[in-house]
Order: sequence, then structure tokens, then C-alpha cells
Amino acid sequence: MNRVLVPSTTNLRGLAEAARSASRVIAQCTTSQKNAVLLDLADRLERSASRILEANVADLREARAAGLTSAKVRRLEITPTSLTAMAEGVRQVAALPDPVGRVVKNWTVPSGLDVSKVGCPLGVILMIYESRPNVTVDAFALCFKAGNACILKGGHEARRSNEALGALVLESLAKLRVPTAALHVFTSSDRAALEQLLQLDDLIDLCIPRGGESLIRFVHDHSRIPTVQHFHGVCHVFVDRAADLTKALEICATAKTSAPATCNAAECLLIDEAIADRFLPSLVDRLLGDGVEVRLDPAALARLAPGIGPEMGERVHLATEEDWGREFLDLVVAVKVVSGLDGAIAHIERFASGHTEAIVTEDPHAQEAFLHRVQSSCTLVNASTRFNDGFQLGLGAEIGISTSKVHAYGPMGLEELTAQRYVVRGDGQTR
Amino acid sequence: MNRVLVPSTTNLRGLAEAARSASRVIAQCTTSQKNAVLLDLADRLERSASRILEANVADLREARAAGLTSAKVRRLEITPTSLTAMAEGVRQVAALPDPVGRVVKNWTVPSGLDVSKVGCPLGVILMIYESRPNVTVDAFALCFKAGNACILKGGHEARRSNEALGALVLESLAKLRVPTAALHVFTSSDRAALEQLLQLDDLIDLCIPRGGESLIRFVHDHSRIPTVQHFHGVCHVFVDRAADLTKALEICATAKTSAPATCNAAECLLIDEAIADRFLPSLVDRLLGDGVEVRLDPAALARLAPGIGPEMGERVHLATEEDWGREFLDLVVAVKVVSGLDGAIAHIERFASGHTEAIVTEDPHAQEAFLHRVQSSCTLVNASTRFNDGFQLGLGAEIGISTSKVHAYGPMGLEELTAQRYVVRGDGQTR
Repeated sequence: MNRVLVPSTTNLRGLAEAARSASRVIAQCTTSQKNAVLLDLADRLERSASRILEANVADLREARAAGLTSAKVRRLEITPTSLTAMAEGVRQVAALPDPVGRVVKNWTVPSGLDVSKVGCPLGVILMIYESRPNVTVDAFALCFKAGNACILKGGHEARRSNEALGALVLESLAKLRVPTAALHVFTSSDRAALEQLLQLDDLIDLCIPRGGESLIRFVHDHSRIPTVQHFHGVCHVFVDRAADLTKALEICATAKTSAPATCNAAECLLIDEAIADRFLPSLVDRLLGDGVEVRLDPAALARLAPGIGPEMGERVHLATEEDWGREFLDLVVAVKVVSGLDGAIAHIERFASGHTEAIVTEDPHAQEAFLHRVQSSCTLVNASTRFNDGFQLGLGAEIGISTSKVHAYGPMGLEELTAQRYVVRGDGQTR
Repeated sequence: MNRVLVPSTTNLRGLAEAARSASRVIAQCTTSQKNAVLLDLADRLERSASRILEANVADLREARAAGLTSAKVRRLEITPTSLTAMAEGVRQVAALPDPVGRVVKNWTVPSGLDVSKVGCPLGVILMIYESRPNVTVDAFALCFKAGNACILKGGHEARRSNEALGALVLESLAKLRVPTAALHVFTSSDRAALEQLLQLDDLIDLCIPRGGESLIRFVHDHSRIPTVQHFHGVCHVFVDRAADLTKALEICATAKTSAPATCNAAECLLIDEAIADRFLPSLVDRLLGDGVEVRLDPAALARLAPGIGPEMGERVHLATEEDWGREFLDLVVAVKVVSGLDGAIAHIERFASGHTEAIVTEDPHAQEAFLHRVQSSCTLVNASTRFNDGFQLGLGAEIGISTSKVHAYGPMGLEELTAQRYVVRGDGQTR
């Protein structure tokens, strides 16, 4: 199977040239040609479950032997259920409207010219990501539907899974006579090779790094290619004095617990001092009940009932300076008492990562002030930070969440994987 | 006056930090606050004409003494008329709708969340450009109206003009109590200083280089900041076999002659072989009559009337390989005979710069095929390439024309100087 995959020792410029040349063909593919590839791939994923799971088992075995944390091993795992979900995700992308050729806007100017802005592919997209192998399939489906070729560089620990998934894509492309250079699964763990790829700005149009600090830093330091970063989420929930405390309790708890390792999980809860006495004891009680470790500032700690505090051992702590602005990615949350809306915003401006911030309040003035003043990629009123997700926000699917402002900010769906060009129709206009 | 300008020897990080901090204030300015600054600036430009012209005369004197080409000296010159046009341009930007806070789209998702995409400033914009001092005023007006602070690095040869114009901006900002760090006019010609600025990716959000190959290359090689390139325009006009030849003649001639030194001027005319005999003699006649030097491929040359050819001396040449894909920026044009639409597109794919391409034809199939297959930032049917311009396409004004696909492609107006963020309103949703 690996025969069809480009080995990592290949001339990387040749690989990118092949992707560039395939991208010219894909840019001209009709919607039904692209959808045929995606639907074939979805079926193939289901039919080839054993092949994929076998490759994944080998990756898992090696990961455990290498002593990866259990959270990392969990992210790496493919199950029959997650494989069905991958196939379903590909079918959903096929069902989404094609962004290529879409007339986004159309108007007429005084000279009589008819002007349109029309969606067009970006060209070749390089995506660099860590563990989760499902990203390989999701990212290909979105890049391809948007008319782009892609080079996908996953984590070394997932290489067998990624190669097996990539091989299925190549089979679908070949079957439907689309150039197989539409996808390169790049599995080398060689940073020098990655560095070389990152220099090919004449052949690669966009780079999307998605992962932790060291990956983003590496790409940022070495890339000559335009980059949209999918960086960490240090998401805050602010419970205002005019909050409905029942809603607040549910939002705070689930924003942390429903998927603690995701970038849109809450990492820090800011509690208005005006309601801290009333709200904090029940909040901490609920969090502890949900298995969350709580790190409180002194003002929050002082509001807890006697007997609840650091003396409980591992689960209630005094927060340290490092706990503010920290992405725990686990069942751990920081809690701080702030002096109203201004105090909350001051904390957010200093410590947030520009990802997602929510306010819980029934006061319309506080709602609007928060939405106006906090400039994160997604701000929410009376809803969990976990809704900052392409599917939840109605984009259909996403390749990740951009924390860069240039090109795309927030969830990146099909539209954010395209550019827009001007198409002008006249009848002899000169100037 | 220079007292209020940051001298180029200042700590550059401090300069960018001041811009970053000003950008936070400008992001929250109301539309009327921003417009008050712009209208004050427009009046000030007219009232202070003598100050500006004096500074410009000194720049012009030095430029002539240094032996700059007359085209470059012309680009540098400010006249009372061009100063009035600058003031008028600033008033037009004030009259444009504010892109900050604009709800671009609004929808509801099944969970009941109300989702909006809302315009927001990018933050701090670094623009690097050559000669024309009017760019200083235009770029400030657009960046500021879009809620951004900006650092403007003009050509060294225009430094007195740019400093004088920048000083007026600072007076308007100070009068209306907006942080004057909203604008830094950076006039050092020190490449090491520029290189240092280009490293400040934690403080500067977007870099816009606008100019020739060596400037773009320098920025590209040294910048860690996301960059939208405003590179050269190697624009083509293709005259199809089904063209209305009267329209074709007007479009070909004016696309070259109306402003030969602009990026949207035609540099190469592609003539369908099916009409070459009929069209070429009148085309070359018209171009020569308009003072244009014509460089033809052998097939085009063979179609000219006896007596018109290289024997005419300087004005008709056989084109060399270097003339294809070349930006003449002068009254010079390349002409080539091609084998129909496919031949034209093959030439464009090989030699165009992704800026602007036009087709002249009455055949609707040829029109649509050209618009579909050519992926330049602007493609036109039966209209001059000179219409690829923010004002002409109805954007109100532009800071330049992007030839990068990421973030913006084509003329960049107010909208392209902002990002879009997600604003979500719920009533207690969790997941």
C-alpha cells in the first residue's frame, strides 16, 4: 500500500511541484467530480475498517511502549465508531455547497461594469498537526472540496494510521481519475525535511499548523509560507453579577468537563465579586463532584465553606501566577474573583489567547459591553465556550480554529480554505 | 514639527508597543470620532498646502540632484491639484461605511444560538512602499477608518514630504484626543532597522509591502509578520477571434497608454491567429500613433504592412524571450499571436503575475471559459485591465492591489483591512 505514498526521503520540491500541478486540475473539477471522490472515500473507509484498525493498533502499541501519556494514547486511537464518524464526516463535506465558483457578491458600478466576487481555491495547502489521525481524513475532505491539493504532515506516532488512511484517499482519487498528487501524506519525523517544505513558498500557498506551543513556534520560525495558526485556547467564562446562577453553574461546569482536552474547553472561570459569596460554594461543590481539580485565587478561596479548601488534599489549591493564562487541557480549572465587568475584561486582555470568551448575564448592557470590548475569535453570551466549533456554529465542518486574525479568525470551514477573485463583465469600457 | 515624529533611531520595539496600545483605543472609537479626525485632516491638508509643497520641493531637488529617472521624480511630485485630491480622498474615506462592528452575516443554528460574523480591526499594520507620498495619507485614512494603528515606511527620497504629511495627521489626532501613536511615519532608509521592525510579529499584525521586486523580496525574506504582497502587474489583454475589433482597438490602446506606469496597465497583447491578419496592422498603427514602442513575436511581425517593422528604428522591435512576463511600466508593449483561447490561456498561465487579465470577445462561451479558467485577482470581459482598481470596482478606495491569495486577493479596501470575529448569543446553551 505504501508504494503509492511518497516516501519521506523523496525530493521535497518535486513533491510540492506535483501538488501544485494537481491543484490546477482540481481547481477546474466540477462539484460532482469532487463529490464522487468524497463519497467513494466514505464507502472505502467503512469497507476497509480492518486495514485501518490494524495500522492503528500498531501505532497504539508503539505509543504505549514509548510511554506516551494516556491522554495522548486516547487521542491516537481509532475505534470502529470513530471510523464510522470519519466516513459520515466525509459524506457531510460532500453535501456542503461548493465554495469554488460561488458568487459571493455581485454589483454594478457607474461605468456600467458588472462586478462579482467569486470563490476560488487557494492552491496547495500544507497542514501540520499532532496525534489525532481523523484529522488526515477531515482535512483532505475539506481542502479537496475547496479545490485545493494538500500536503498533510501528521504526528510521527500516528504514521501507520495516517498512511493507511491516506492510501484509501489515493485509491478513491485514482478510481475517479483525479491526480493522486491531490494528497500527500507526509510521515517523516525529520524536522529538517519539514523545514525544507516550509521554504517552498513558490509552490505552497498556505500553511496551517495546529497543535501545541513548540509546533507553532517551529513553524513560525521556519516558514516562508503564509501561515494561519491554530494555537491554543485559553478560554474564559465570566459570571456577571446579573447572571442567572442556574445557567451559570451549568455553563461553567460543562464548559470544563464535557471535553477537557479540547481547545474550546474553559480554562478559567471569572466570578463577579458581587455574587462571589452566593455562587462560589455551589460552583466549587459542583466542580469537585464532577471530578475537576480547582485552583482558586485567595479571594475565591476565602468564600468557600469551612472544610472546603487546600486541606482537602489534591483537588482544591491556591492558584499560582502560572495558572492564569494556562491551558490545562485536563480536568483542572482556575477560578478568580474579579471586580465586575471591567475586572473580567482586564484579566481577559492580559491572559486570554484570543480564542473564545463567554459571559453569563441577564443584563443586556453587560452583554453588549462584553461582546463589543472583547475581541476574541468568538465571544458568547449565556452559552458554553464549547460552541466555538465549525459544526456547532453552522459552518458544516472545520479544519480547525484560527487564532490568527489575518485570512481567517475562528473556525475555518470551506469558505476559509478559498480566496475570492474579481470577475468583471463590460461591453467595451476603457479608462 | 518633527518633534512629534518618532525619530528613526528610537527603540523600535517601543514604537511598535505604542502602536499596539493605540490600536486598542482606536478599535473602540466610534465612527463619528474616526470621521472627525479624517475631516479635520482633510481641511488641514488644504490649509497647510505651502508647508507640504515646501517639503516636497526639497525632496524633488535632492531627487534630481541624485539623478533619479524622470518617471521616479514625477511619482514623487506633489502639486496643489494632487494635494486637493488627497484631501478629497480622505473625505471620501470618511464617507464610507465603517467596517468595524458591521454584521457581515447573521444566522441561527439548531441549538438556538444566534450567530453573527462581525467586522473587527486587525490591530497594527506595517506598510512599506516606494515613492508616491500621497500613499502616506491614503494608507493612514484607510487603516484608521478600519480601526487600526499603522506604521508607514515610505521611500527615503520622499522623507520630507512624508514627514510633513505625517505631522498633519498627528495634529488632527492630537486635536481630537486620539492617541497619536495611531500613526508612525518611519523614514529611516536603514534596512537593518526595517529588518528589526519585520521581526516584531508579537506587536504587528499585518505587513503590506507595495513596490518592486527587490522591496517585496526583502520583506518576504525577513518578515515574521503575516504579509499581503502588492506585487507587480504583468497584465494581459487577449483579443479573441469573435472580438468586436473596434472595442478591441480602444481597449488595447488605452489599457497601455492611459497610465503606463501603473500596475494595472496592459503589458502584453495576445492576438488570436484567426483575426491577426485583419487586426494587427490597425493595432500597431494605433499604438505607434499613441507613442507606444511595440515588441512583436515573429508571427505578429509577419502580419504587418510592408514598411512597418524593425526598419522603423526604435519603435517596432522583434520581442525577445525577456519581453514575455515583463512589467514595462512605460509606453512599451509586447504583442504575440496565439492559437485561440487555449493558446492565450497557456501563455497567461506561464507568464502572468496573477494581477489582471482581460478578454475581448462577443462569444459568450469564450467569455465564460476565460473567466472560469484564468484565476488572476481580476479577470475582465470587454473592459480594460485599468479597471482593476478599488475605486473603479466600487470599493470606495484601496490601499493597493494584493497579488497574494491569502487574506485578500485584488484591490484591498476597508473590508480587507479588517478581520471578522464570531459573536454568539444564547440563553443557557451547554454541550
